[in-house]
Amino acid sequence: MSFSHVAIIGLGLLGGSIGLAVRAELPGTKTTGYDADPDVRARARERGLADTVLDDPAEAVRGADLVILCVPVGAMGEAARAIEPGLSADTVISDVGSSKRSITDALVAALPNHQIIPAHPVAGTENSGPDAGFATLFHQRWCIVTPPAGADAEKVASLVDFWESLGALVETMDAEHHDLVLAVTSHIPHLIAYTIVGTASDLEDVTRSEVIKYSAGGFRDFTRIAASDPTMWRDVFLNNKDAVLEMLDRFLTDLALMREAIRAGDGEMMHDTFSRTRAIRRSIVALGQDDPRPDFGRADHE
Amino acid sequence: MSFSHVAIIGLGLLGGSIGLAVRAELPGTKTTGYDADPDVRARARERGLADTVLDDPAEAVRGADLVILCVPVGAMGEAARAIEPGLSADTVISDVGSSKRSITDALVAALPNHQIIPAHPVAGTENSGPDAGFATLFHQRWCIVTPPAGADAEKVASLVDFWESLGALVETMDAEHHDLVLAVTSHIPHLIAYTIVGTASDLEDVTRSEVIKYSAGGFRDFTRIAASDPTMWRDVFLNNKDAVLEMLDRFLTDLALMREAIRAGDGEMMHDTFSRTRAIRRSIVALGQDDPRPDFGRADHE
Ligand SMILES: NC(=O)c1ccc[n+]([C@@H]2O[C@H](COP(=O)([O-])OP(=O)(O)OC[C@H]3O[C@@H](n4cnc5c(N)ncnc54)[C@H](OP(=O)(O)O)[C@@H]3O)[C@@H](O)[C@H]2O)c1
Ligand SMILES: NC(=O)c1ccc[n+]([C@@H]2O[C@H](COP(=O)([O-])OP(=O)(O)OC[C@H]3O[C@@H](n4cnc5c(N)ncnc54)[C@H](OP(=O)(O)O)[C@@H]3O)[C@@H](O)[C@H]2O)c1
Repeated sequence: MSFSHVAIIGLGLLGGSIGLAVRAELPGTKTTGYDADPDVRARARERGLADTVLDDPAEAVRGADLVILCVPVGAMGEAARAIEPGLSADTVISDVGSSKRSITDALVAALPNHQIIPAHPVAGTENSGPDAGFATLFHQRWCIVTPPAGADAEKVASLVDFWESLGALVETMDAEHHDLVLAVTSHIPHLIAYTIVGTASDLEDVTRSEVIKYSAGGFRDFTRIAASDPTMWRDVFLNNKDAVLEMLDRFLTDLALMREAIRAGDGEMMHDTFSRTRAIRRSIVALGQDDPRPDFGRADHE
Repeated sequence: MSFSHVAIIGLGLLGGSIGLAVRAELPGTKTTGYDADPDVRARARERGLADTVLDDPAEAVRGADLVILCVPVGAMGEAARAIEPGLSADTVISDVGSSKRSITDALVAALPNHQIIPAHPVAGTENSGPDAGFATLFHQRWCIVTPPAGADAEKVASLVDFWESLGALVETMDAEHHDLVLAVTSHIPHLIAYTIVGTASDLEDVTRSEVIKYSAGGFRDFTRIAASDPTMWRDVFLNNKDAVLEMLDRFLTDLALMREAIRAGDGEMMHDTFSRTRAIRRSIVALGQDDPRPDFGRADHE
């Protein structure tokens, strides 16, 4: 079974990209959309992010066999309650949120009688809003589907097919494991980037203009990550607290060891650590999740 | 006065890029080169990284009015002693090392009777070796010149001219301040990236293959930084210990505050911090030190 009508709630980077990708890759599939912000709805109509953009959330999901919630993590429960009047009994409810345990709980609480199959496409940019989306965002990127115990296997398979149609590679795991994996590969990197950019902008002995001028030495890559949407990231850290704290403490332990090596002038320990990390980079490039070219292959995703 | 013969010691990323840039931008200027590794010398001859590549360091600098040491920070003193027999009394000795206080001391100790004018072009990539260099590496990038007290003003001006000819923007400051600024904008970002990539590769509950697969969520940008040359970075941390520890401790203080905000669920504090960091990103893009395009404008540098 494949979905014939996909409703998208939240028409920013993720929602807009899904709408454009469905048009490009699944031309027989109808899309409807809704966003809480009237300006976003207006811009979504102009860009054609969905076939029809409606002014009411329940109307936007009426007749849909798949609804994808593309709102900030903290708004998932509210968005689910708002669509309830328009849902049919067998509509699949999914989402794209960056943490999975707390969203699953919020969706099950809001829509206890519906099929909830959460998912998280591990694909994004530092931009947000209705102008940020593009059809190829999901190409060759992983999408993690986290079916709760007892989820309808056929519907899970349909959701997997849907994401594969948009160009994604799909993996299935439980919500807890997702949250731990993403804490390492995404949440902690963002937390660190936000923090070091904050530290650098508050120094007395080094001016902000110096930090900006000499950013090509490594810092600028952190500022790009730290330019991501503040609301999205606040919600991620509020909703994946345990896994983030667990991984943060491991990082802090390792950083304390590095600090001690620098203090003691232990060049051998440093050289060992710095040599080991190269292997992981080579694997990422080999598996197509980044690229050795100067644009990191990002042009292929435009 | 402009330099008519530039000798380059160390023909890796930096040395090779200087040789290629001089050929492109200063066609009247002669270049000679030397590298301790015979394989690197052979490859440098093939790529034409200098007009002539010699097998002896003192021969490589004979007749030069500017020598630029492009070896790892920890090898600067040794490289300076090896060229001594070939130097004239008024040859300017400069370098490209990533830390400046300890290099200045090492060069003055090795060559007490020569004009030492250290410099650091804040431009690089994660690649090294004789195949890594390219002529436009320095375009629109800052080069920091750190003349010791009593340096000959005319020779300092010539060195500034030289770097501007290669496309760089030049700033002058003292070695201590350089080391503090670069600790923030370059050394701490590298230390953090190396550490988090190390943490992620040693977890029991998240496999290395998961870390690699889901790296597109932010982690991959850290792995690129953590793929930089281990010897270079060991030397930087051995030679800029005080400034690195000072900045690391400020970062750790800020990170402890963020940790507490996450633990306490303080969304307001997080949102505030995450909003402030966007301004710095905008300035970096506006000043041309990074680019909003998906390739960050790196294609312009090839
Ligand atoms: N950005 C990434 O890199 C990335 C990657 C993977 C997954 N995600 C996840 O994708 C989701 C959306 O992120 P995004 O980057 O697409 O954000 P975005 O560009 O800011 O889009 C979210 C949109 O949802 C709207 N919205 C908020 N509350 C709503 C509600 N109750 N009902 C309807 N619309 C509502 C927002 O309007 P207002 O602006 O007026 O609030 C905004 O237009 C988040 O859960 C995030 O964790 C993001
Ligand atoms: N990479 C960057 O992003 C960057 C940016 C700005 C400044 N820098 C600075 O530039 C300098 C060079 O870095 P790089 O990236 O160009 O390194 P690189 O590509 O590894 O090149 C350095 C070359 O110097 C050779 N060498 C080592 N000791 C020598 C000696 N005593 N005499 C002659 N040659 C010797 C090395 O040979 P072996 O490999 O056999 O040792 C190697 O071929 C470092 O001081 C670094 O701090 C680097």
